[in-house]
Amino acid sequence: MTITAAFYRGDKSFEVKQIEAEAPGAGQVQIEVAFCGICGTDLHAYLGHMDGRVGFDRILGHEMSGTVKAVGEAVEGWKEGDRVVVRPLDPCGECPACKRGHSHICHKQTFIGLDSQGAMQQLWNVPAHTLHRVPETVSLRDAALIEPLAVACHDVRMAEVAEGEDVLVIGGGPIGMLVAMVARAAGGKVTISEVNENRLAYADKLGFDTINPKEVDAAAEIMKKTGDKGADVIFEVSGTQPGVDLMTEAACTRCRIVMVAIHASKPTVDIFRFFWRELKLIGTRVYEPEDYEKAIASIAAGDIDADSFITDIRPLDKIGEAFAELTANPNAMKSLLQING
Amino acid sequence: MTITAAFYRGDKSFEVKQIEAEAPGAGQVQIEVAFCGICGTDLHAYLGHMDGRVGFDRILGHEMSGTVKAVGEAVEGWKEGDRVVVRPLDPCGECPACKRGHSHICHKQTFIGLDSQGAMQQLWNVPAHTLHRVPETVSLRDAALIEPLAVACHDVRMAEVAEGEDVLVIGGGPIGMLVAMVARAAGGKVTISEVNENRLAYADKLGFDTINPKEVDAAAEIMKKTGDKGADVIFEVSGTQPGVDLMTEAACTRCRIVMVAIHASKPTVDIFRFFWRELKLIGTRVYEPEDYEKAIASIAAGDIDADSFITDIRPLDKIGEAFAELTANPNAMKSLLQING
Repeated sequence: MTITAAFYRGDKSFEVKQIEAEAPGAGQVQIEVAFCGICGTDLHAYLGHMDGRVGFDRILGHEMSGTVKAVGEAVEGWKEGDRVVVRPLDPCGECPACKRGHSHICHKQTFIGLDSQGAMQQLWNVPAHTLHRVPETVSLRDAALIEPLAVACHDVRMAEVAEGEDVLVIGGGPIGMLVAMVARAAGGKVTISEVNENRLAYADKLGFDTINPKEVDAAAEIMKKTGDKGADVIFEVSGTQPGVDLMTEAACTRCRIVMVAIHASKPTVDIFRFFWRELKLIGTRVYEPEDYEKAIASIAAGDIDADSFITDIRPLDKIGEAFAELTANPNAMKSLLQING
Repeated sequence: MTITAAFYRGDKSFEVKQIEAEAPGAGQVQIEVAFCGICGTDLHAYLGHMDGRVGFDRILGHEMSGTVKAVGEAVEGWKEGDRVVVRPLDPCGECPACKRGHSHICHKQTFIGLDSQGAMQQLWNVPAHTLHRVPETVSLRDAALIEPLAVACHDVRMAEVAEGEDVLVIGGGPIGMLVAMVARAAGGKVTISEVNENRLAYADKLGFDTINPKEVDAAAEIMKKTGDKGADVIFEVSGTQPGVDLMTEAACTRCRIVMVAIHASKPTVDIFRFFWRELKLIGTRVYEPEDYEKAIASIAAGDIDADSFITDIRPLDKIGEAFAELTANPNAMKSLLQING
């Protein structure tokens, strides 16, 4: 069967073309992809930062939803028409991380959609072990948020956010905003620190307390808000040196500081403060199966304002326009591509 | 009653003189001090690094043992002759840390022996709430190790070291060596990384695996020893940039890295590695009551080689010589002053 697929060809360009779909192999499921979100990592690939890893014949995309179209040999539990999302991790099963039960951070991870072909094609074959079921009460449009939402669910679970705790989210981009929503649903009193006025306005609209650290002393504001205690839980999602400074300054004793951001360079860290106030730093990356289930339940429960979070939806053949627009407009939260239908 | 006391007078000098002992006040217990160890912090004070905090009329000392001589009003549970050690913390009870149950890291802590008069005097009045009982099976000499040992017990407890885990201790000074001994007693397979040959020889003598990172690639050695997994628990006790580099390089996935050292400047930290391998950094400081009880039990159980750990014992009037010797000879583990008897 002939399908449409988008190939990254290097230097901010895609080729959208017709290809022949392959049948699913043994252990694989073929999915008719409905929607696929554009991740910050996809943007990095588009901008050429990951050419060595993805090459110039890569179909990107992993924030997807769809329905099962066909199943390969030795696949049980799935049938045509099942509504699904994919947890895009294919671990080696052999490395020290896998052996310790941490296969989500496998040392030789195949991240599907970066290290192998992704969801920006109409029919997509993936290992059956990557599938999660989407309930009828969740639209396929909203289901495309499950992957990034699972990141936030993992972060909040690792932080063990409890009812009534003071939570600070440093950085109000898409992941920071999802972390804020999940932390609020867990009972946290959430403040978002962000420098972009449009993102601050969106956070305000969602009912979060906000701080612009370019205008006020963010740590002092958190101390004032918490009676000089400091935040119980802090998510560093900014990836910046000022964010790393704020995470120790705004912390209460034994604060759990969760490192969500990818820091490309090594920041200086107030390690003395970790000793002095017995702070904890918790690195978190991607998700485990239970985080996917939690994300699905959160969407179903209405914890996430999907209508406002999804900024725009374009058909697959407008992929170039969608990536260009996102690069020019960092105020967007989530852009989706409609792959079928 | 006239007693002997040693006063820090600034610029590496002490005055040992006779003073009149005061009776214990309400809520206080008067202790006849037997032995008092010299802590690294005492050395800092001696070298003039803490003059603003301790002043020039300070009796130092908090690593002590002794017997109760008298009790003040409203003190219950203690009587003359009881063998004791002091947990030298007198928290405010009012600050956010105290209110959260973290009074050991009170924001306004009075550290007895630095912020108030310490144990380098023959009779010492302290709040009764600071006392722990020393069993008859533990000599008062060995009991002087309980305070630094309680630091190590706190570190190992916060790290949750389990049977069979690979443990790396970065820095083999007195605290690092005690951490290594307590971690081994908890079932850890302990390697000590240290650059000082005399300390390495002592670690070897105690039966620990050792690495000199000036001679070999310490991270590669740990990877080799652990089948490419990395250490399960790492204690950073060096207070150096190379130590901070090693703590991320030698870590397994979800490694618990315990920050024991006092970092006077802000090191650069491989924060990306915290994200990538889901590492945890756990700041730890001083001790809680249960750590004192654990330290007492550890000494009683023979987990600590006190005979070799105690390098020398001098009478109180040789305090100047003891501090000068320690400053010149960083190979010593623990120097004690004999205060009475």
